[in-house]
Amino acid sequence: MHQTQASFRISALLFPIASAVFVNGKFCKNPNMVVADDFLFQGLNKAGNTSNNVGSIVTPVNVNQLEGLNTLGVSMARLDFAPYGINPPHTHPRATEAFLLVEGTLYVGFITSNPADPAQKNKLFTKYLYPGDVFVFPQGLIHFQFNVGKTNAVAFASFGSQNPGTITIANAVFGSDPKINPDVLAKAFQVEKNIIDHLQAQFWYNNN
Amino acid sequence: MHQTQASFRISALLFPIASAVFVNGKFCKNPNMVVADDFLFQGLNKAGNTSNNVGSIVTPVNVNQLEGLNTLGVSMARLDFAPYGINPPHTHPRATEAFLLVEGTLYVGFITSNPADPAQKNKLFTKYLYPGDVFVFPQGLIHFQFNVGKTNAVAFASFGSQNPGTITIANAVFGSDPKINPDVLAKAFQVEKNIIDHLQAQFWYNNN
Amino acid sequence: MHQTQASFRISALLFPIASAVFVNGKFCKNPNMVVADDFLFQGLNKAGNTSNNVGSIVTPVNVNQLEGLNTLGVSMARLDFAPYGINPPHTHPRATEAFLLVEGTLYVGFITSNPADPAQKNKLFTKYLYPGDVFVFPQGLIHFQFNVGKTNAVAFASFGSQNPGTITIANAVFGSDPKINPDVLAKAFQVEKNIIDHLQAQFWYNNN
Amino acid sequence: MHQTQASFRISALLFPIASAVFVNGKFCKNPNMVVADDFLFQGLNKAGNTSNNVGSIVTPVNVNQLEGLNTLGVSMARLDFAPYGINPPHTHPRATEAFLLVEGTLYVGFITSNPADPAQKNKLFTKYLYPGDVFVFPQGLIHFQFNVGKTNAVAFASFGSQNPGTITIANAVFGSDPKINPDVLAKAFQVEKNIIDHLQAQFWYNNN
Amino acid sequence: MHQTQASFRISALLFPIASAVFVNGKFCKNPNMVVADDFLFQGLNKAGNTSNNVGSIVTPVNVNQLEGLNTLGVSMARLDFAPYGINPPHTHPRATEAFLLVEGTLYVGFITSNPADPAQKNKLFTKYLYPGDVFVFPQGLIHFQFNVGKTNAVAFASFGSQNPGTITIANAVFGSDPKINPDVLAKAFQVEKNIIDHLQAQFWYNNN
Amino acid sequence: MHQTQASFRISALLFPIASAVFVNGKFCKNPNMVVADDFLFQGLNKAGNTSNNVGSIVTPVNVNQLEGLNTLGVSMARLDFAPYGINPPHTHPRATEAFLLVEGTLYVGFITSNPADPAQKNKLFTKYLYPGDVFVFPQGLIHFQFNVGKTNAVAFASFGSQNPGTITIANAVFGSDPKINPDVLAKAFQVEKNIIDHLQAQFWYNNN
Repeated sequence: MHQTQASFRISALLFPIASAVFVNGKFCKNPNMVVADDFLFQGLNKAGNTSNNVGSIVTPVNVNQLEGLNTLGVSMARLDFAPYGINPPHTHPRATEAFLLVEGTLYVGFITSNPADPAQKNKLFTKYLYPGDVFVFPQGLIHFQFNVGKTNAVAFASFGSQNPGTITIANAVFGSDPKINPDVLAKAFQVEKNIIDHLQAQFWYNNN
Repeated sequence: MHQTQASFRISALLFPIASAVFVNGKFCKNPNMVVADDFLFQGLNKAGNTSNNVGSIVTPVNVNQLEGLNTLGVSMARLDFAPYGINPPHTHPRATEAFLLVEGTLYVGFITSNPADPAQKNKLFTKYLYPGDVFVFPQGLIHFQFNVGKTNAVAFASFGSQNPGTITIANAVFGSDPKINPDVLAKAFQVEKNIIDHLQAQFWYNNN
Repeated sequence: MHQTQASFRISALLFPIASAVFVNGKFCKNPNMVVADDFLFQGLNKAGNTSNNVGSIVTPVNVNQLEGLNTLGVSMARLDFAPYGINPPHTHPRATEAFLLVEGTLYVGFITSNPADPAQKNKLFTKYLYPGDVFVFPQGLIHFQFNVGKTNAVAFASFGSQNPGTITIANAVFGSDPKINPDVLAKAFQVEKNIIDHLQAQFWYNNN
Repeated sequence: MHQTQASFRISALLFPIASAVFVNGKFCKNPNMVVADDFLFQGLNKAGNTSNNVGSIVTPVNVNQLEGLNTLGVSMARLDFAPYGINPPHTHPRATEAFLLVEGTLYVGFITSNPADPAQKNKLFTKYLYPGDVFVFPQGLIHFQFNVGKTNAVAFASFGSQNPGTITIANAVFGSDPKINPDVLAKAFQVEKNIIDHLQAQFWYNNN
Repeated sequence: MHQTQASFRISALLFPIASAVFVNGKFCKNPNMVVADDFLFQGLNKAGNTSNNVGSIVTPVNVNQLEGLNTLGVSMARLDFAPYGINPPHTHPRATEAFLLVEGTLYVGFITSNPADPAQKNKLFTKYLYPGDVFVFPQGLIHFQFNVGKTNAVAFASFGSQNPGTITIANAVFGSDPKINPDVLAKAFQVEKNIIDHLQAQFWYNNN
Repeated sequence: MHQTQASFRISALLFPIASAVFVNGKFCKNPNMVVADDFLFQGLNKAGNTSNNVGSIVTPVNVNQLEGLNTLGVSMARLDFAPYGINPPHTHPRATEAFLLVEGTLYVGFITSNPADPAQKNKLFTKYLYPGDVFVFPQGLIHFQFNVGKTNAVAFASFGSQNPGTITIANAVFGSDPKINPDVLAKAFQVEKNIIDHLQAQFWYNNN
């Protein structure tokens, strides 16, 4: 047990290899086999294709795209918005997001969790963002971005996890496979069941 | 600096006092002033009042009700369901929930976060629960419970945080103060704006 | 390195598979193979068998019984007490416990860690619990429950870890295999060695 | 909000000041007031007084004695043993201990937590330690040291917390204030109540 | 103790207020007083002034500039490089950095920690970065960026901490106040003391 | 899924086995195969060989030498200093160090991270240490020790991580493989390139 194991010393350099088993999401590569390319992702200068129903697209750079981030607690994304495009209400279950607008004008907001007094409402905090503005979306809270300008908008997001996850609210609730029992949704959303049927019949595509 | 400070030794016993400032949510009481009542909550044997629009009610026992839980990483709740009552789709941004049904029959489910392939859908995992069943709702994922029986249902929930938080999806999205821009929601939910107007005009009450 | 790996996206859904190696206790199942049953435990409505020397029994629901709890930081247990049964003094090395009494009457308590002043004593905090009472046992502190009523008692416990562990003090100290040197125990407990011999000769059974 | 706050930059240098309120155990000193003495403890070269009933004494150097350790996750202690002295069975609820013997000969051990199979026993792992030996006592597990030599023994302990805490098992169980109900202890330790009375009547002193 | 405390429910919204005491770096603002501006930083579109001895400048956006980041585990920075400017070798003691180049060409690298075999050297991993490239600098490792192009370069950095800290190696080692004993540095850097004197006599300015 | 898995109960006892894959640095041994020797390291009473260019040597006892420390958050080291030997400026990227001098006299210090005001300097905190003194080196900060006495010095260090890592500043900066671009270093250290060439041509050996 007392021999020196050289291969473990550079233990900040742990990251995933292809494997049939899964350990906290990712196995770690043998540190002696690490190369600089393991820490590099290329292409975040390219605009994503916003030709979809919401007019926006997210290009993620997390541990699934950049293996050198494994266990290191940070990741990024590029967001492109066509004019009037939205990044619809969503959450990141495992990270806070710092959002930097670099081009265009966005209207953004997040909603607080349920207040203690049931007669009070969830608060909405919003801002119009201009290039150079950084806005914070705290971990797990529902938030959205809306391109209110006539031009494209571009933003870069920073996340405090190598694997923040995303849940697009409308898609998860109305577009799951299989579908949620419409009685549950009719009661939750206080609408007639035919509206739920209509919502569940949409084509739901996860751009973001 | 080298004197002994007796008051700090029982440092597992830190918890909140009334205060005008806020530190990680709660200040800690002077350990020498701690009494057994600081670790006690009473009344979880009493059914909550389910006479509301969703037919369910949550009675939380977290750091806001039981100060002795501060910093200790666990909390509880009682859930009551009238026949056909639902606990509408919601998330807990800071904890996983282990849910124990003790009375009645529930249909429960949770939805996974967005898959990597945008053409794939978020998966729904569901189960019918009977007394004695424990089901897991992983941190941050949208989940719901639905009383499919003709009788009341009662459950106890365990959370891996002293302050798990709750976000009721429909209430946060359609009942926030102020309201979310309806253009955002119309595009996100792929419906006409008049449906959004209708939804935002509802009375939203946070029972849960 | 830049290809998308769909199987990792639902990374909240990591959990154990049978394996010859052990990683933080448990390997994680391939997320694509996950089914709803992986998140379900059945049978916590059934009373445990309290026909033993302490008159109580614990039915745990942690990651060893419910694999879907892996990495998720919460677990549960059911506790049954015959009249005058006890859950003997014990600790949970890795979690705080929130303890909910649902039936019967218990006398419960926990003891603080050593005070800074060696002439001071460890404090005992106790309460009589009635149905609906929740009491907190902070992480690592010695605690016990005692059924002081003439009827059975039933409780549900919540833990802030998927694998809290339990150390029953008397069993660990006097019933270990092999036995602790009796000279150590005689001095620690300030008794004659024949009392230690007597204690170590008991049959020690871990019900809890 | 956007002004620069110089006083926060050296944020690794947070530590406690005298205060009437308690925050995660300790307030932090204004970083601009920090001096090198805040990071210094003197006197661990001096043997502690082992003239007590167990023949050993612990001199702790944790956040209560050395304020510069606040929030930094490590602490130390010196342990002195008279011939045949013991450090009685105890736990550290918040840290693992790495124990270095520098003088004398000790017999040391720790006991595992309860096995899954109730008919199995808690395992005891023991070693005879000689100068230069390092032994690991995992977090929360009951452990002890016994000076089996005719000379004094001296050791230095490292803990993975600035405030590991100590629970001396016999003292906490039999010497608490107020006393634990003897019926609980008689049943837990499987002995007659008069033995419990005898044990609780001892003078319990926390040397360690 | 059992009253509802509305002010704590939106506990994701904790952040600093002006205060004479310091708690984990920052006090938290009363959640009821929070406004959207608390989550906004403006001006990251403006180039920093690179007219200094290294030809680069860092504009940080962490908890010291954007209070809404408190406790949330993420922060950002903008980096500007004049032609041939460098961000000299430095570490971030509390966070990994994901570095996105948006303009220009940089030569970047980091150095691994000491290998187990003392005859082996610390490895240097380097890359030439072009717009759209993301490179990872693991927590605590020494790294640098060098503008090898004839034009300005601009980058945005993401950190997995709201307060990552920066240690510019040359400045800390040769420009500290008071100075490090030159005998220590002469031996450490294996040079004559007059070279150390020369180095310590420079004007050291922390641009980054 | 509901079967009992005895092998996992003593989950505090997880630690590494030889393996071709790497998970958070180390695989865990099957708990049923654990023996007391897995928690033992021998030989820290032996002085290291200080016949090298810095006149000091570190003997580490972390997870690479003592496998039973895996996941347990603490480790140790012995440090030997010849007269006038130094432990050159270095950092531990993953742990704070509590440093106990047991023999000799040392001059020690650490340097704070960059201040907010760029015209201010990094502060140096220093102390002369005598036997029995404990000094704190906060996580990630550059620190050094210098034997100012005519006799050997011996110290024991405690770290709040099982794998703290070490980066010897001069060796990492001037002795990396391959070498850092000398233009970068000339600018960073504000010296002529020939001094950098001289520094990079030294023989760099990681004793510590």
